[in-house]
Amino acid sequence: MVEKLVDFWKACCYISAGMIYLKDNPLLRTPLKSEHIKNRLLGHWGASPALSFVYVHANRVINKYNLNAIFIAGPGHGAPGVIAPVYLEGTLSEYYPEFTQDEEGMKKLFKYFSFPGGFGSHCTPELPGSIQEGGELGYSLSHAYGAIFDNPKLLAVTVIGDGEAETGPLAASWHSNKFLNPARDGAVLPVLSLNGYKINNPTVLARIEEAELLNLFKGYGYDPIIVDGTDDYVESHQKMAEAMDKSVERIINIWSDAKEKIQRPILPMIILRSPKGWTAPKIVKDHYIEGYWRSHQVPLSDVKENTENLVILQQWLMSYEPNKLFDQSGKLRKDLLELIPPDNLKMSKNPISNGGLIRIPLKLPQLKEFSIDPQQQKYHENTRPLGDYLRKIIDLNPNNFRVFGPDETKSNRLDAIFAHGKAWNARIFPVDSDEGYLSAFGRVMEILSEHTIEGWLEGYLLTGRHGFLNTYEGFAPIISSMVNQFGKWIDISSDISWRMPVSSLNLLLTSVVWRQDHNGFTHQDPGFITSIVDKWPNVVRVYFPPDANTLLATTWHCLQTTNRINIIVADKQKHPQYLNIDEAIKNVIKGIGIWNFASNHPQEEPDVVVASCGDIPTKEAIAAVKIVKDFFPELRIRFVNVINLFALTPSGEHPDGLTDREFDSYFTTDKPVIFNFHGYPWLIHRLTYRRKNHDNIHVRGYRENRKYGIDSTALSPFLKGRGGITTPMQLSILNQTDRFSIAIDIIDRVERISQKAGYARDLIRNAQIEALQYAYEHGVDKPDLCD
Amino acid sequence: MVEKLVDFWKACCYISAGMIYLKDNPLLRTPLKSEHIKNRLLGHWGASPALSFVYVHANRVINKYNLNAIFIAGPGHGAPGVIAPVYLEGTLSEYYPEFTQDEEGMKKLFKYFSFPGGFGSHCTPELPGSIQEGGELGYSLSHAYGAIFDNPKLLAVTVIGDGEAETGPLAASWHSNKFLNPARDGAVLPVLSLNGYKINNPTVLARIEEAELLNLFKGYGYDPIIVDGTDDYVESHQKMAEAMDKSVERIINIWSDAKEKIQRPILPMIILRSPKGWTAPKIVKDHYIEGYWRSHQVPLSDVKENTENLVILQQWLMSYEPNKLFDQSGKLRKDLLELIPPDNLKMSKNPISNGGLIRIPLKLPQLKEFSIDPQQQKYHENTRPLGDYLRKIIDLNPNNFRVFGPDETKSNRLDAIFAHGKAWNARIFPVDSDEGYLSAFGRVMEILSEHTIEGWLEGYLLTGRHGFLNTYEGFAPIISSMVNQFGKWIDISSDISWRMPVSSLNLLLTSVVWRQDHNGFTHQDPGFITSIVDKWPNVVRVYFPPDANTLLATTWHCLQTTNRINIIVADKQKHPQYLNIDEAIKNVIKGIGIWNFASNHPQEEPDVVVASCGDIPTKEAIAAVKIVKDFFPELRIRFVNVINLFALTPSGEHPDGLTDREFDSYFTTDKPVIFNFHGYPWLIHRLTYRRKNHDNIHVRGYRENRKYGIDSTALSPFLKGRGGITTPMQLSILNQTDRFSIAIDIIDRVERISQKAGYARDLIRNAQIEALQYAYEHGVDKPDLCD
Repeated sequence: MVEKLVDFWKACCYISAGMIYLKDNPLLRTPLKSEHIKNRLLGHWGASPALSFVYVHANRVINKYNLNAIFIAGPGHGAPGVIAPVYLEGTLSEYYPEFTQDEEGMKKLFKYFSFPGGFGSHCTPELPGSIQEGGELGYSLSHAYGAIFDNPKLLAVTVIGDGEAETGPLAASWHSNKFLNPARDGAVLPVLSLNGYKINNPTVLARIEEAELLNLFKGYGYDPIIVDGTDDYVESHQKMAEAMDKSVERIINIWSDAKEKIQRPILPMIILRSPKGWTAPKIVKDHYIEGYWRSHQVPLSDVKENTENLVILQQWLMSYEPNKLFDQSGKLRKDLLELIPPDNLKMSKNPISNGGLIRIPLKLPQLKEFSIDPQQQKYHENTRPLGDYLRKIIDLNPNNFRVFGPDETKSNRLDAIFAHGKAWNARIFPVDSDEGYLSAFGRVMEILSEHTIEGWLEGYLLTGRHGFLNTYEGFAPIISSMVNQFGKWIDISSDISWRMPVSSLNLLLTSVVWRQDHNGFTHQDPGFITSIVDKWPNVVRVYFPPDANTLLATTWHCLQTTNRINIIVADKQKHPQYLNIDEAIKNVIKGIGIWNFASNHPQEEPDVVVASCGDIPTKEAIAAVKIVKDFFPELRIRFVNVINLFALTPSGEHPDGLTDREFDSYFTTDKPVIFNFHGYPWLIHRLTYRRKNHDNIHVRGYRENRKYGIDSTALSPFLKGRGGITTPMQLSILNQTDRFSIAIDIIDRVERISQKAGYARDLIRNAQIEALQYAYEHGVDKPDLCD
Repeated sequence: MVEKLVDFWKACCYISAGMIYLKDNPLLRTPLKSEHIKNRLLGHWGASPALSFVYVHANRVINKYNLNAIFIAGPGHGAPGVIAPVYLEGTLSEYYPEFTQDEEGMKKLFKYFSFPGGFGSHCTPELPGSIQEGGELGYSLSHAYGAIFDNPKLLAVTVIGDGEAETGPLAASWHSNKFLNPARDGAVLPVLSLNGYKINNPTVLARIEEAELLNLFKGYGYDPIIVDGTDDYVESHQKMAEAMDKSVERIINIWSDAKEKIQRPILPMIILRSPKGWTAPKIVKDHYIEGYWRSHQVPLSDVKENTENLVILQQWLMSYEPNKLFDQSGKLRKDLLELIPPDNLKMSKNPISNGGLIRIPLKLPQLKEFSIDPQQQKYHENTRPLGDYLRKIIDLNPNNFRVFGPDETKSNRLDAIFAHGKAWNARIFPVDSDEGYLSAFGRVMEILSEHTIEGWLEGYLLTGRHGFLNTYEGFAPIISSMVNQFGKWIDISSDISWRMPVSSLNLLLTSVVWRQDHNGFTHQDPGFITSIVDKWPNVVRVYFPPDANTLLATTWHCLQTTNRINIIVADKQKHPQYLNIDEAIKNVIKGIGIWNFASNHPQEEPDVVVASCGDIPTKEAIAAVKIVKDFFPELRIRFVNVINLFALTPSGEHPDGLTDREFDSYFTTDKPVIFNFHGYPWLIHRLTYRRKNHDNIHVRGYRENRKYGIDSTALSPFLKGRGGITTPMQLSILNQTDRFSIAIDIIDRVERISQKAGYARDLIRNAQIEALQYAYEHGVDKPDLCD
């Protein structure tokens, strides 16, 4: 048995090396020649042998224990080490028929690896069985946990590179085990691939004492087993087989024990200490290759031109004895085929890794039940009804919907969902039942690592489930890079015929930039939106629901979509309420609407358009229109509210973009437009610069280059509006998004009222100064300016 | 002695609570009344008592051991707990004379905490002694290490919240100890404030077994000491004093031993297990306060209106016995003053925490020595000469300049600096000397955590030194949030009279989006720039040097600036060289230049302007002009290269912005402009939409919404240009930034050549298709299209 494992693994290594080097003569039937070598040598060898090693052993335990398993490759740069077994077990040929199980298919596989149009050097979405690419490092373990949540008896064999292990997101995600409930979740088997090197440096974990290494993982709550991969391949495989058996049996016991009693599982983990670039030549021209960072990419680079190196490559490749591994046709030796799990157990074909296949649409309750009546409840916390709605969704979908947050769910006023408990499988004290409760069966996932919750959610979605993540807007940029990488995965997946659409990534950004009264400047950042709008139009959506009902309707809409990233920006505080639920749904679906109740003479052609996007800017813009109406009752003001940011984009650039004709019907082609925006004002210009009326669009929004208008006094030489504390009205005035500034903007831009403008402007400025003074003296806003 | 510590700490707690609640009657000389209570209760109590506790004990050991120390507050939300001792030790009154050491000053301090214009609820830049705000969590430990690098005998007492400890960046940064050399660096004394709760949840580290907790930190390479903070304040202080003594003595020994032999220090750390909101009421109306998450912000909120709560507050405040702590005038009791270190040892006045004060400008070598001659070296790796330059800078500045990178320094071709060794104080093997070497005295800081190196660099800069960070452009977004927070700190600091300017944060983004031949889509992202351009114009600069000499000149310029974030985008691969060093310096200083050698009939008024920004777009734009010249030798083409992105911005919006007149002199007011840009094309529109000629500016750049032009074939059903592998030319063509597309853009937009246009366009398209076909077949670009 062990000999077979060794041979299967050698076959993987041979295929991996072949992918990096060969465009012809795949089975080395003739001596290796320069023309067999690829024109450009690309790919990563270093992590590949260990990945195949783990894959082969995962297959062994799948067969032995009849396991439902998936494979997650943290060191995605070692794609050859995963593509090889996926090819050898036949799956690649099923999905891509040209890669047949023979010499010709192998040749194509070799040639098209890391070749334009071929497989990439990471575990890209094109690779069957993959749910994590590993291009950007740090997310393998949180993806793995996300995958096994609510997937009882699923094992995620998760290889973590020792380079990846140095990243913050990975370092934090080990603690995911405190959120795992073996009675309803599967398990992760982490395999730390401790090969000692990154691109050009040793890894930290490879250079500390073994006792420290073991302590670290015990401290993380795992039971580590060290396996040494050495030159003695048979012994190495023997040791790994023992460690895998021990680990799997432990996990099976944990699952079984969980029927009796739920307790935090101490999961086994394997530390696979093997040389980087294992099985490559050890030393070439006085340079270390195997066991050194030089094997990270292409261990021997100058082989096409350099005959000496070509010979070394030939010897290296022949060391795997391809003639013994493959039959005459190029198919894997028959007795090795028995190491391959049956079709229904192959990791590369596990439908869980193509989550859209098994995705069940969410059961959604009627919105009406949760909506508010804006006539009755003129002010409301916008996120509260959403909390009730989400609670009900959890009711209806007890196994495939979770809500995620970095311990801000209550702060974000979504705590109605605590009725379903907060997931927690570490120690619980009696005091924990004082408002909200902790439970191993809780459905709300909270840990103070935005990276970990985002990773969990991604893993959960990619395996066919649904989720919702809430976070402070100001800290969303912490995960902008992760969200981007997820978007890339989704964008590519959308074009792969066999990848079925998965549920969208829904992110609620709340506790927004405009309401950071005591948190101040560090908590103010509307930049996440800016970083996402440039991305894939088929994937990205951004919504700014202005009140509670539009937030409900937006969420209802988003939860039904697939293969998207839906960003919803909505504040948690009390705000005026405008639309009943039916109007809300219409506005959300159109993405934009004319609000007659906030307009003046709405039936007539407007003199000026006042537009808003975002809850707080909408409130101020409406108040501004009221102010202007008092002075100029005859003025025709159209009020436009934008919920779907991409409605502004030309229709040729985004599926949700309005046609020019539609856009003009809202914003006119020649009238002044005052646009009050939640984020950076330039973003509106970037979206609308091609529109006919663009030159007339005047945008207010959050700006970083303002200076506070009031001079600092002797009392407060450090008085600054931005760095420290502001009232909401101070912050608005600072940014000229307040009702007074917008009113003046309107007046300034409507020529025909210029005679009366001076008078009105002066009174409005006085009111603005009064508002500032009040806040300055009392530390709060004048009551009539509050929500 | 211990009694005095307790009393000093009680005074801190009293001041902290007072800041949150009182606007009058600061010493409770009369019974507490509603009118003494602030209108709005803001602030964070939960972390404050433990922060003061540690501060007081830091002061004790400073006095006892004559230590040079700074204080870093990870739980920045507990600012009251730091402001209080800084006030009591007199520093606040020195920096802000209105906060006198008497009743009146205390009243002002109370009123203006978390009040518009007053101190914020985090350790903002306005707070003397602070170098880390803690608004966004996760960076305290990496900041601390950055501060003590090259600061021998400096102790950074660093409080880490157990909430913060859950974040990825913090979790990774514990391993910073493998880069610390006690012979040349100071030491960090981490104090984990294990108060058990975050905003609304328990913390993970508080709910695992003690053995696990200890293992974790032993695994991280520390020697943890647990101190329990309880109701018995005297005993708690006694235990803490012992732990502090033990820790400091150990650290002093480590420093002393380092004279004999350099080895990795096992630093002590303290786990301070104390109740959240320590010393607050335990239970109010059946709700837990002290020792529960309810004490996170304002423990008792309804005190102004609710008499019952007002009484509880009064009892709570009186429990500190303010009458015993302060004298009649409101000054701290005399015998407690002896706990305050002498002026030169006060943490709040340590000049290291106001790094600009002690900053020594960098000694910079002559650029000429490192420049290349573009006549001789027509192609060159742009970053290599920079590596030599940086190496020399390290030579000249051996103690106050370091280079940082996430193990990409060699990949980014900066490995000349390895002559100074890579910092490493974990195990070193003989093999490590094979190219580059590891040393506890190395000057290159590499760990695979972008967060950790960014944190180190920030800490290093804020304490008065200089640095340079290199990273792949595609992964720069990982730290965009951190860089933003640093920028906020700098922006605010610039307006604080006593904060002296610190060296700029210099980030080189290399291995750029256009050259990800085998890394593919995950490594392609020019979005970092987009996320930073909206920020503070006084802080942010973005440079796109197009060749080796301009990169040198840009770096030379950036290293002399202060209080900025300088982003430099430059690829590492071989590229054409254009400017000699003198021309390079001129172009960098102007930020933009007309390149006659790349123009056609440069002395005449142009028919068309071709502009470029970025090395690869510049190369293609120049080639495009050549193509067009061959067809239309009479066409007057002006070639403009933009190095400083903000030159495009109107001068009123950014200090580096061109005036409209200047802008028009480059781009004309009415001629077509073809602009080939490195990043997202919309960014150029966002910067130029106010310019007169904006409607004529046609921008090409990296786009996420293209689809590959060539149909996938039966051979490669997964052929996609984006997800996998492309040659550089394929990627350019995909984005229409290639020479052929740009040439056609020029032709399309110059009306007067439209008769010949069809002919030219057809030939150019043919050449483009040939280029694509060649790449498709060979996997590499046609040699004449390569660098």
